[in-house]
Order: sequence, then C-alpha cells, then structure tokens
Amino acid sequence: MALIKHLPFLFLFALLSYHAKLVLGERSSYIVHMDKSLMPKVFPTHNHWYSFTVSSLKPTTTNSFDHHHKPLNLLYTYDNVFHGFSAVMSKDEVEALKKTPGFVSAYPDRSVTVDTTHTFEFLSLNPYAGLWPASEYGKDVIIGVIDTGVWPESPSYKDDGMSEIPSRWKGTCEAGQEFNSSLCNKKLIGVRYFNKGVIAANPNVTISMNSGRDTEGHGTHTSSTAAGNYVGGASFFGYASGTARGIAPRAHVAMYKVIWEEGRYASDVLAGMDQAVADGVDVISISMGFDDVPLYEDPIAIASFGAMEKGVLVSSSAGNAGDLGSLHNGIPWVLTVAAGSIDRFFAGGLTLGNGEKISGWTTFPAPALVKDLPLIYKKNISSCNSTAALSTVGYAIVICEKGSVFNQMQFISTSSVAAAIYISDDPEVFEFTDFPYPGVVVSTKHAQTLLNYVTKRNGSASASINFQQTLVGAKPAPTVASYTSRGPAPSHPGILKPDMMAPGSLVLASWVPNTLTNIIGSNIGLTSDFILASGTSMACPHASGVAALLKGAHPEWSPAAIRSAMMTTADPLDNTRGYIKDSFFNYEIATPLAMGSGQVDPNRAADPGLIYDATPQDYVNLLCSMNYTKNQIWTITRSAYTCTDPSSDLNYPSFITLYPNNTKYDVVQEFNRTVTNVGGERTSYNVIVNAPSGAAVTVTPSTLQFGKKYEKQSYSLRIAYAGNTSGLVEFGSIVWNEESGGHSVRSPIVVAPMIPVW
Amino acid sequence: MALIKHLPFLFLFALLSYHAKLVLGERSSYIVHMDKSLMPKVFPTHNHWYSFTVSSLKPTTTNSFDHHHKPLNLLYTYDNVFHGFSAVMSKDEVEALKKTPGFVSAYPDRSVTVDTTHTFEFLSLNPYAGLWPASEYGKDVIIGVIDTGVWPESPSYKDDGMSEIPSRWKGTCEAGQEFNSSLCNKKLIGVRYFNKGVIAANPNVTISMNSGRDTEGHGTHTSSTAAGNYVGGASFFGYASGTARGIAPRAHVAMYKVIWEEGRYASDVLAGMDQAVADGVDVISISMGFDDVPLYEDPIAIASFGAMEKGVLVSSSAGNAGDLGSLHNGIPWVLTVAAGSIDRFFAGGLTLGNGEKISGWTTFPAPALVKDLPLIYKKNISSCNSTAALSTVGYAIVICEKGSVFNQMQFISTSSVAAAIYISDDPEVFEFTDFPYPGVVVSTKHAQTLLNYVTKRNGSASASINFQQTLVGAKPAPTVASYTSRGPAPSHPGILKPDMMAPGSLVLASWVPNTLTNIIGSNIGLTSDFILASGTSMACPHASGVAALLKGAHPEWSPAAIRSAMMTTADPLDNTRGYIKDSFFNYEIATPLAMGSGQVDPNRAADPGLIYDATPQDYVNLLCSMNYTKNQIWTITRSAYTCTDPSSDLNYPSFITLYPNNTKYDVVQEFNRTVTNVGGERTSYNVIVNAPSGAAVTVTPSTLQFGKKYEKQSYSLRIAYAGNTSGLVEFGSIVWNEESGGHSVRSPIVVAPMIPVW
Repeated sequence: MALIKHLPFLFLFALLSYHAKLVLGERSSYIVHMDKSLMPKVFPTHNHWYSFTVSSLKPTTTNSFDHHHKPLNLLYTYDNVFHGFSAVMSKDEVEALKKTPGFVSAYPDRSVTVDTTHTFEFLSLNPYAGLWPASEYGKDVIIGVIDTGVWPESPSYKDDGMSEIPSRWKGTCEAGQEFNSSLCNKKLIGVRYFNKGVIAANPNVTISMNSGRDTEGHGTHTSSTAAGNYVGGASFFGYASGTARGIAPRAHVAMYKVIWEEGRYASDVLAGMDQAVADGVDVISISMGFDDVPLYEDPIAIASFGAMEKGVLVSSSAGNAGDLGSLHNGIPWVLTVAAGSIDRFFAGGLTLGNGEKISGWTTFPAPALVKDLPLIYKKNISSCNSTAALSTVGYAIVICEKGSVFNQMQFISTSSVAAAIYISDDPEVFEFTDFPYPGVVVSTKHAQTLLNYVTKRNGSASASINFQQTLVGAKPAPTVASYTSRGPAPSHPGILKPDMMAPGSLVLASWVPNTLTNIIGSNIGLTSDFILASGTSMACPHASGVAALLKGAHPEWSPAAIRSAMMTTADPLDNTRGYIKDSFFNYEIATPLAMGSGQVDPNRAADPGLIYDATPQDYVNLLCSMNYTKNQIWTITRSAYTCTDPSSDLNYPSFITLYPNNTKYDVVQEFNRTVTNVGGERTSYNVIVNAPSGAAVTVTPSTLQFGKKYEKQSYSLRIAYAGNTSGLVEFGSIVWNEESGGHSVRSPIVVAPMIPVW
Repeated sequence: MALIKHLPFLFLFALLSYHAKLVLGERSSYIVHMDKSLMPKVFPTHNHWYSFTVSSLKPTTTNSFDHHHKPLNLLYTYDNVFHGFSAVMSKDEVEALKKTPGFVSAYPDRSVTVDTTHTFEFLSLNPYAGLWPASEYGKDVIIGVIDTGVWPESPSYKDDGMSEIPSRWKGTCEAGQEFNSSLCNKKLIGVRYFNKGVIAANPNVTISMNSGRDTEGHGTHTSSTAAGNYVGGASFFGYASGTARGIAPRAHVAMYKVIWEEGRYASDVLAGMDQAVADGVDVISISMGFDDVPLYEDPIAIASFGAMEKGVLVSSSAGNAGDLGSLHNGIPWVLTVAAGSIDRFFAGGLTLGNGEKISGWTTFPAPALVKDLPLIYKKNISSCNSTAALSTVGYAIVICEKGSVFNQMQFISTSSVAAAIYISDDPEVFEFTDFPYPGVVVSTKHAQTLLNYVTKRNGSASASINFQQTLVGAKPAPTVASYTSRGPAPSHPGILKPDMMAPGSLVLASWVPNTLTNIIGSNIGLTSDFILASGTSMACPHASGVAALLKGAHPEWSPAAIRSAMMTTADPLDNTRGYIKDSFFNYEIATPLAMGSGQVDPNRAADPGLIYDATPQDYVNLLCSMNYTKNQIWTITRSAYTCTDPSSDLNYPSFITLYPNNTKYDVVQEFNRTVTNVGGERTSYNVIVNAPSGAAVTVTPSTLQFGKKYEKQSYSLRIAYAGNTSGLVEFGSIVWNEESGGHSVRSPIVVAPMIPVW
C-alpha cells in the first residue's frame, strides 16, 4: 500500500466508525438551529440569548462523579452561515430545548470524512493568455480553507510577490501552541482553530497541537494546492520536480483548522465555516464531507447555504468511496469536485543489454546506481516471495511476476539483490509511491520486450535502471480516478453530481515536515516537505483555485455563475481527443455520474458566453419541493424564506432523469432553464443535442438570440426515456454553440436508475 | 573512508607506483626536446624533421615475436610550449638519438599525480563590486583544463547567457567514442583528447572511453569549479544546496583529456598543454603534478614555460601529500595552489529531549525521520562493534564512542537501530561524506551536553535529528587542509611555494552521472550529478578561475603580474580575524610553507597597487643560476635564451631563506625586488616589517615613491638569521602600505631549515 496515496482512504475508514455513538441519557454535543427573528428583545445579542437558553435547561443527571455533570456549556454560537449554537446536551435536554421559543432544529454533532504541481500546466494555465493574466493570478482574492491547519513555515506560504492584505479582511492570526500570531503574512493572512466539538465529545482529551498548526499534512497540501506561492526546486525525492505553485498563486489563504488528531466534528466544521464567512473570504475550499446525511443535517450543506447567500462559493470534494451513489457533498448550492489523473508518469528508465528501453513505474526515492547488472529471470525465483530463493540471485536485477507486488516488495527490501522489476497490470500498483528498494513496475504488455530479451539471452542478460525520471504527456489523461465517489447524490439525486473533475491523483504539494512519508532500505524512514497525494481532497483545491481566479476576473459573478462557467466549459475529452475514460470501469467512457461535466478548463471558464445563474430563493424553491418539514428547511435557510414557489427544476447547468430501478417504466421529464449572456452583444446560439442512448431529447427553442450583455433567455429541455430494466446509466449532452463566435456552452445529460436513498 | 573525499588520495597512491618501470633494451616512451633552430632546411616542417629523426634510428631488437618490433612511431610532436616529440624507443635508440643534430634532451615518459559551491561567496565574489563586475564574470576569457575530460551534458556546461566564442579561438571539438562534435557550445568551446602515451606504454590496451568524455569525474569537477555556468538547485543529496557556479561563470572552457582509466603519461600531458596554448587559451588549469622530478624533467614545468612565454598563466595544485617538502608543481613560473577549508558545516541538527540543541556532522543522503526516539547510552553497547549488543537497542538512537567511527558505521548500517551519534575528535571524520545510515558525528566537547543529559535521564532520554542542514559561517575558516602538500619545493626550494591557498575541502561541483558516489542503507548504491570533493585538485581551479577573472579585468597583465596580484593581496587571516590555522598541526598558526601568502582574495587582487613582474628572461636567469647543464636548461627554455646574467634572486613576491639543517649556521641573505605601480599616480608606500622570530629583516629604502602609473621602484631586503638547531620554520612578512590610499602589498617571509632534495 502506498503510504501517501491512500491517506485519504485511511481517513475515510477511520471516520466511518465514528458515527452515532450516542447513548440515551449520556450527554454529547448537538448542533442547534434557532430562528433569530424570534429572539426576545431583552437579550442584547444572540450570544446572550443562546447562553440563557442553554443554561435554563435542567441537568438530567446528578451523579457527582459524572464528569459530565456541570453547567451546560455552549461550544460555539453561529451567526453568519446560520443562526444557532452547539452545546453538550443529553437527549432529554434536547427534548426540553425543542420547546424553547425560536428553536428550529437540533441534531447530534457528527464526524466528517476528509477526502495537489505540473497540474497548472495540465490545466493549460499560462502567464500569456487566459485566466491567469485575466485574474492577475488571483490577486486580492481570499480562499478560506477548512482543514487540518497549516504548516506556516512551508515555503508555499512565503509572501514574496504578494499584494497587500485586502482591507475588507476581518480575520486574525490566532496564536496557539507552537503558533505565534506573527506567523501570518501577506500570503497566509489568517489562521484560526476550532476544537470545542472535539473536547466536548471527549472531555478528558488532550489536544496534542492546540493551534492552527497542521500536524497531519492534509491542510497544508490542500491550501498550497489552491493558492501556494511559487517554490523552486520542489519535488518528491526528485520526482515531479519543478517550481511548485498553487492554482491561484497570488490569492491569499486563510486556514480554519477544524480537523484534529483527536477527532473531527461537525460543530467545529460549522464554526470554521461560520468564521470564514464572517472574516470575508471569497471562496471556501473544503476537502471533506459528511456521509449518509440529509441536507438539513449536513453541516456543510447548512453552512454553505449561508456562505452562498453572502456570495461565497463553497468548493468541496466528492469523496473517495468510489461506488455509484456514494458521493458526499452532493449539495445543490456548492461545487462538488471529482478526481482525475494527471498526464504524468514517474519512471525508472530501464535499458536492456541490447539497447531496448522500457519506462517502468517507480518512485524509489534516491538516484540508485543500477548499471549494467545481470538480469535474472528464473521460474523458481520470479514469484519473489522466498528469502532463500532471492538469496541465490546476488547483486543483480531480478524479475518478479505473478504475485502481489506489495508483498514481493517486502521480500525484495530485505534481500541483497540490486533491484527488482515487477510485472503487474494492477492499476493501483501504478499509483504506488512507496518504493523502499530500487525497482520498477512494468505492465505485462511492456514486459514482453523484457521477457523476450532475457529468455533469448539465456542467462547472460543485463540491464540498467535510471531513477527519478518524470515523464509528462502520458496518454490518455485525464482518466477518472478509481476512488472518486460517484453520483447520484444520495442527499438529493435530482441534481446531477459531481459537477466536474479536477486533477486529484499523485498531486505534488507541500506537506508537514518530520512525518513519515516513505521508507528507504529495510528500515530507514524518510520525510519530505512535498509529497504526492491522491484523492478528491486534492482535486477540490484545484477547483477552489480556479474559482478564486474566476472571482478575481469577474468579481460580480455569483457562486452559481462561477460554478456554471466552470461546468459549461469543462472538457469531456482527454488528451487523445477521445472521451475521458474511467479507470475504475476498465477504461470505458466515463459517465457524468463519475466526472460531472468533465475536466475543469480554467481558461475557457474565464469566458463562458452564457451563465446558468441561481439565487438563494431558487435554492429555497428547490428545498420547498422536497419532502422536508418547515424546520428541516429552516435549518438550512433560516426563517428568511418562505415556500411560495416550490420547484424541483433548479436552473442548473446539467440534467439528470432518474427512473425506478428494475421496473419497465417510461419516463418523461421537462426542464426549464434560463441563461444569461455574459459574452458579447447581439449574438445567437444554436443547440446541438447528443441524446443519451434510448432517450429522446427535445430543446425548445433551438436558437437563443441575445441583444445586450446580461440579457437572459430561456429554453425548455424534454427527456423521454422508454422504460427498460437494463439498469444502465445512459448519458449525453446538449451544447449551445455561438453562431458567430467561439463560445460553446455544454451541459451533460444523465438518464439513470434511481439509487436507494437512506 | 569517505569515498569521495579521498579520491585525490587514491589517485596519488595509484600513481606513486608508476614511476620508472623501465627495463634496459625494452622499449618505452620517451619525451625528446630538440633545438628547432638547428632544423635542416630540407625539412618543410618540424614534423618532417622529427619523423625522419626517429625513423633513422636503427631498431635494436630483431625478434619478430616482439610486438615492440615495428618501425618507431612518433606519439606526438610538440611545437608550442617546447620543440620536440615523444616516441617509443629503447635505451639504445635514445643513446643513438642523442648524437643526432638538434638533440637537446630526452627523458622517460612518466606518470602524473592528479590532485570543487558557496566558495564564490566565501571568497567574497559578488555582482555589485569587485572582480566579478570588473571582469564581466570572466567574459571572453578561455580557461584550458588539462584533466580527465568532461561530461558535456552536465548542466554546468550549458551556454545560457554566454557570449560568443572569441574569434582568436583555434581549438576544436574533437569527436570520439560517445562524443559528438556538436556537444560543444559557447561554454564548452573545445574538447580534445590525448592518449598515445597510454597506448605506447601498454600497446595491447583498450581505451574504454576513447574520447574527451569524462568517465571518472575529476575533470568535470575541476572545470565546473573554474568556470561552470549557473545551475540552480544543485546539491549533494540536499547538502551544500543552492545555485552552483564556477568562479568565472562567463569564461569559456576548453578541455584537454590526458588522464585515462588505463594510465596517465607525461607525453599526453605535454600534448594537451601544447595544444591548449596553440588553441589560444588564456589560463591553463592543471590539477595534477609530477612527483620527485627536477624541473627539466617535469613536463608541467617544461610546458608551462612555453605557455608563460605566450602570456598564458598555468595554475596548478600543490599536491595532497601533506608533508613538509612533499609539494609538487613548485615551478617558479606557475601558480602553485594549496588547499584550505570552507566556512561550511554539513549538519544533522540534534535536539535532545530537554530542548538542548547540538549540530552534529553528517551527510546522510536523505531526509531521515528521526524524531522523539529513545536515546541509548550504555557502556556495553557504546563501542558499537557488536551486532548482538546493537540488536538489543531496538528502534532508538544509540551513542557510539571510543572506536573507529568508520568501523562503527559498518555495524550500525546493518543494525536495526534508528540512528547513531558517534563521538569523535578525528578531523578526518568531520570530512566524511559517506553516511549510509542515519547518524551524526559530535566532538567530545559538544558531546558533553549530550552525555550530561542522557546520564541524568537515566534511561528515559530521547532525541531528534534533522538531516540535510548546511550551516555557513563556521569558524575558524579557512584552515589549511591537512592533506595539502607543503613546501619547500623539492624541485627548487629557493622560491617559496606554495604561492597561496584556495578552497579545496568539500567543494561542491559537477560529477559524471551513473557512478557510485555513496551508499544508503546496507547495500543501495547511489549516484549524484554534484559531489563534495576534497583536494588541492579542487583548490587549483578556484585559483584558475580567479586568474581568468583577472585576465578579463586586466588583459595586459603578464602571468607573473596576475600571480603577484593574487599573492600580495592574499589574506593571512581567517574569519575570526586571527591568523589562519593549520588543521594538520593541531590548529597552530599556518606557515607560508603550508598556505603561501594566504587565502586568495579575488576582489583585492583586482586592484593590488603594486606588482612584482617577471619576464621569461628573468626565469632563464634563475635557471642559469642552478646547477643545470645547458641541455637541461634548454629542455625548459629552448635555445632562444642564453645564460648571460644568471641570478637566483627572482623578482618574486615572497621570500625564503634556507639554512643547513641540524647545524648552527648564521645565515644572511639579500633580496632585490622591483615593484611596478599599477595603482594611481603620485603615490608612495611605506614598509612595515614583521620579522620572523630570531631573524633581523632590513628593507631599504623603507619608502617607495611613484609618479606615474607603471613606474617601477626597487628595494632590497636583507634577512639575518642567527644559526640554531631548533629546526623550526620561522615566518613573518613585509607589507608595503600606501600612504594615502587603500593598497597594501604583502609578502610572506620564511626562514627554514633546508629540506633534503633528491
């Protein structure tokens, strides 16, 4: 198992077991939504009101040895993304609270699932044209990152070349353990930390790093990916070497540490997001999510609604669960990002004695000398799982096949062979970043050249391997990462999620020092200031960085407009100009349930032509169309909105029709959409429909004419799908092509069987 | 033993055994000097004459199985630095040759002894003032390097930012094995190779790399040190990291490969130097020397006389033999360079559990994770020479003391401890660059803190080590390197040698790829494109680079003037402003026999005020004063000069008086010197004398007045030393201080017992 690559997965497994450890009578922390409009006038502030409310609840236990027996304490009050507080309460106390005036909803605090730099090139960002110069590289934009904190001394946070901190910034650089408030600068403009939820859940806990300092690496990696400064000479032990930089290298970063070694709780996440909005961030990047929760109990859904209202786009990760319908953060008002591969291959250049060359996969972390050594291929050795057999090889290169490469590597690492060549077609092996001993992995296809040579030479074969090679331009790329969580979104399947894909596999970004990143030899642990990490956690900050650049280039755009620009210009094609493939499904063409509209294309997003906008009220109308109670809706929207015009037909730049699974059921669905012209004046667009297999798609009208900029035009799209029981996910698209201009505005269409929703 | 550091020593040992393997009757190669003025007019060129001369010699053996029995072949003809040729001959044939008209001398071919970047900073070179801007970084100057060839693909030879090749350049880029003539560029302007001498000595030999390509590294290291281009991100596994550059980064490099894996011969060295002068180099850098030879049989002395006549300064290494009187290249008309240390320390930062910090010496080649681990100090383990005892330690940091660190490292490398701290005061250990396993070396003085802590904690001690740290500003620096060969010069003790000192220890410069540079773990061999090497071989190219810069700034200066400027401005003080110490002699004050005038100071050398110049005739007068035959003299000078004015009193910018060893003998010696004003007009200098202990030094006059620039003034210096049998080397100096100006012109004085000369 690659130590780094799987880190997001490790998080995932650790977190799934956290759910619902509540026992009646025992106290635990709850998040409470209140209707602030009902606050009695006697309270000068909401803090007073919430304090009074909580303190008036009668304790339900009287055992003096119970360390929970103390006056109820507020953990946080929230006032920006929603109104309410979090507090440690018993079930009974919560019941009592429900009778309090102004109460909207309460739900248990819960755990969050946390889901990197040639990527700027791969996304075609360049200094000469497009979004980088248009946005001045994100100058004056502030990205708030909700994560594990930050290692402020990382060179990614140096502020060389940074503009002054925007005067609207209200954040602070909170001092704490091993964290001096002078550690912030013009790049890292704010750091705060939130762990009352963790402490409430485990009152005897000792917070091992009680400050915004990252001890784990995840937050340092995501924030440097989104907006790290230029760092020359960055690499992972010589691989992916170059000048690292974030996608928005001139944007400011504010870190909100809400994830702790000791736990990760919704109340802390909410507090971080609430504060980020209050501090004045422009974009929130959150590479984590809550699994298996409805929108009205999903802290990110709740907080991001408030953020969206204030014009702050929340960019989030789809999750690393891989399966269909496993996606989290499928929230209609956030950007949900899937992960794809990069056109990069970390290689050991294998040169056979006859001069033939093969590029094998490796990240062996040093320039090993493997030159003109005997090449050994023997049936009794090549399983590479016998210390005795390997001891007969001597200082030579041994070929290993037919076994677990991970297992073979353990035997090789404690042997005295010079190097190993592993033959494997397991795609996971080609994402290994842990090569403790000199070696390369070669696919069976490429191994044919090797085996032909070594067999022909009959014992006198030789080879050399050159390490630390980075090949770019690998094809096809991107492909959808196997681990990326797929739609439909369980929390609301009616909006096609994820929205788009960004680079997420083997992303190079900053890491915390003095943590184990890999092993060399049999037992020497190494550290690295930059690592290659994989996950939707790494894709999300790429999208966040692009969103920040768009905010810089188009300060007037709403969060929905920014997301629309990114979605309608996303590229469904890979670098072979074929459709993007899905590495999980045997490299078949990827569906929008895996990658949304396709790979984010920042330069095209800067000038999308048309925008599908949405207002807070539009999202309220959507919520009103769901089977939610008033209080469930108010938990998200607060009481400012009413359900006067419920509509499930959100003005979204994609289309999904679901039909009952395993039944033959003809389905017809009509969508109405309104697009805003953000391109030139006096222009018209014609639609091209690429209907999903088995579906009839009609668009009316088929031409949209615009006079002025910001003019709006509407159209309707009707999907008719003949019922069947194949269970296949069918997909297509419509593209609005500008008649005399370069804009084309694409929306994916999915017709799929309904997934089970909790 | 450090693999790299000792490389120059390995060369040395390999070479000493090469001497005089001649057997009478058998043929071997000879170098023959001819008086070209006596060439009969029938010969159109010297080549024809030499060919006729050789072919007219009657073979002395007739055994048809003798593979030497073939027509005598010329190896090389020489026409630039001297007139003559080399050829394979028997002793009898040489005797016959001696009777040929025009014959001057003949001597057997012989083996040569071959002797690295923060150093530019340490030498105070900077872009804002001084020699770098004054010389435009060596622009248009050509440095010819006589060495093992060059690895042309090294980034040090990229020609970004280089000016055009000077039109006077007559050299070429000679194609050969794995060497295309298109490999030269505006940085590496010429490459040639010479191995007829090697082949003559071993007629069946196969030259493994028959081209100018370096397979060993030495020539790549020296030439990149002298004039390598800027290379960002250079380091030796993270140590000494930064932008590497040569001392004259804009000078052109021409490589003459004369050193071969298969042998190294004077005839080849002569051919390389002869060609370099013909090609039009400005400075020759030659990091090698011939031991135990008189000047008239020393190819470098002979070739450099011809070079000097043509205005080409030859800069050479003093050798790595360490002992008094062991110096080679003690040639009055070349620059002889000693090696010193750099103010740099490669560290593992040791942090004890109580927060105390110690910097230990290490170059462990990776960022090992050694954090908060138990620190073990037990008497039964600390000798670290027992696998059984070490196996009891577990994954902890073990303290090793009282033993050979090299030996202890072997045991540690195959153990499963996490890291080792070696306690040692051996200066050689603090130059180790081979640390296969995580560990640091700490001196007994610094270890006191460590031992106090670990003893007090009684088994609960812990520590962390951070690797890949480079500390600059180490004091004192420079110190004289232990290995640098000391004067007096056996070939002519009457001139004080070496001339000066330059950085030679642990110099970072380019190396050839795919060669073993060090080991990590128990058996993984590593390579590096940049290495840390030590030796006078590394000091010489520093001085060559400075000489090239001076040539660029003062194209009219003679080789003697350049050398004088470097010597009279050299710094006898270290960075504590105390006198430079000698690491070989227990850090006592270094004598001029170890370091010459002191550490080269490029910026001061650019503006020396006064110059001690010397003409070719001055050197001839010196040779005429020696106990040499006419042909011995002509071997060096050719017949163009006559002994009309013999004088041992060369106008040299230093003074040495030798007295018979072990006898009480009063010595009085008078020196006459002439200095040329190269500073401002209408100026005067006053002398300050710092007489060697026991010596009376009188300077007449004590004031020198100059009207115009280039005006010359003379003075005499008288040393009277009361005889004793102490055998001590006494030393002092005189300094001519400008009355109203900043120039001070310093010359060292040595009074020493005579050394035995072969």
